[in-house]
Amino acid sequence: MALVAIIGDDFPQTFLDLLKSRRINIDGVEIIPGEKSFFWSGRYHHDMNSRDTLATELNVLTQFDPKVPKIYKDADVLLLGNLNPEAQLAAIAQMTGPKFIVMDTMNYWMDNSYDALTKVIAKVDAITINDEEARQLSGDYSLVKAASKIQSMGPKFVIIKKGEHGALLFHKDQVFFAPALPLEEVFDPTGAGDSFAGGFAGYLAKTEDFSFENLKSAIIYGTALASFCVEAFGTKRLTEINHSDIQSRLSMLKSLIQFDIELH
Amino acid sequence: MALVAIIGDDFPQTFLDLLKSRRINIDGVEIIPGEKSFFWSGRYHHDMNSRDTLATELNVLTQFDPKVPKIYKDADVLLLGNLNPEAQLAAIAQMTGPKFIVMDTMNYWMDNSYDALTKVIAKVDAITINDEEARQLSGDYSLVKAASKIQSMGPKFVIIKKGEHGALLFHKDQVFFAPALPLEEVFDPTGAGDSFAGGFAGYLAKTEDFSFENLKSAIIYGTALASFCVEAFGTKRLTEINHSDIQSRLSMLKSLIQFDIELH
Repeated sequence: MALVAIIGDDFPQTFLDLLKSRRINIDGVEIIPGEKSFFWSGRYHHDMNSRDTLATELNVLTQFDPKVPKIYKDADVLLLGNLNPEAQLAAIAQMTGPKFIVMDTMNYWMDNSYDALTKVIAKVDAITINDEEARQLSGDYSLVKAASKIQSMGPKFVIIKKGEHGALLFHKDQVFFAPALPLEEVFDPTGAGDSFAGGFAGYLAKTEDFSFENLKSAIIYGTALASFCVEAFGTKRLTEINHSDIQSRLSMLKSLIQFDIELH
Repeated sequence: MALVAIIGDDFPQTFLDLLKSRRINIDGVEIIPGEKSFFWSGRYHHDMNSRDTLATELNVLTQFDPKVPKIYKDADVLLLGNLNPEAQLAAIAQMTGPKFIVMDTMNYWMDNSYDALTKVIAKVDAITINDEEARQLSGDYSLVKAASKIQSMGPKFVIIKKGEHGALLFHKDQVFFAPALPLEEVFDPTGAGDSFAGGFAGYLAKTEDFSFENLKSAIIYGTALASFCVEAFGTKRLTEINHSDIQSRLSMLKSLIQFDIELH
């Protein structure tokens, strides 16, 4: 697995070491001397689903021109993080033919780079987007209609994230709902969406099965990872958990929705 | 099955006939000559989850003193509709010992009849309440904590309704999540909560099994009925559907959340 990104020289070395220790290739992470990394700060509301941005400093991101390391150009799965759609297009252009492309995006790009955004959307297999953004992108309030319209823009799979209310996967006339785990406490929701996308794409890369059935499992896997992410500040919880922690959370998600009703 | 209620003589006879034709005993429905039935009108917001009340006319409800028909005093299941807690207490007092009592309530009674409300809550087996109301009643934002506090007030089972986001069932340290069916269009959400409660209690009355496992099925059954209710104005859709329509919706709910992920 390889990461392509841009950072300033203020970025803590410990996090780069952490990635390397998890066998993530960081040759594609460009470090710009004398400049600062992207910085965001915000304040979450009581409901932990909405937040106010206090500061967004793009810093090095304004000059991001992704360079995919040569040995990763033939990767099977490409996950495009929530960034400028021009940068997402540049990353796609360097790949030799991934089997599955997932993109994340947000309302900012709908407002400011709509044309480039639709070009990316037309090239990907799956898009992850939150409910409000799906409504904005499609112009439809009903998520069923919104997902259908977004599918007609390109992606075979549309994943609509509803935060603490779970996520929906749409594919043709099929729909799957993944619940979120009801938590006693949400410590810090920052990064939950990214953990979800990472778990989802990681599961697909590992299983190499891009069927609707397997995408369901990938979403459950992403949900499990996101549920750890919010339990502590930043990436802390994700560095503490092991395989069996994840397995036990998957089994909690399974039993959360398990029911037997007689159909006849 | 018997209904206990109060109406004015403006109440359409066709609806009384409808109830009778479905073998619902209406001996406990008191008709007050020369007076008007309870009346509510409101306007739903675009999201169909929130609404503004335009008019609430209590009318005959102010004099409601429920009288349970003699032959129904020994019923196994008692469903207390969302009403004045004093009336709910009066209904409980007339029963000879139901096996299971379900109550519905709303924020209005928390604000205006808190003491009587807590007396009802202490006597019931299950409470259905929406997420905002659960937070208000418990003073806890986390629904997990809220449900635990409400259980300590009496009910062994707490059902938190989240509208289009589904419902949660809490019992001791167990939790079950029932998804709502993603719908293309919601025509009129009025009565969805009542259809849910009715389907839930009806399922329990029919199966006579008050275990956590069977309550899960009852919630799924209530969810299916509520999903029909919102498809047309008032009670229209509920009068059109038959057993096999319900079965097919139950099977849609089952496949909506079905996934297989390998646990090892």
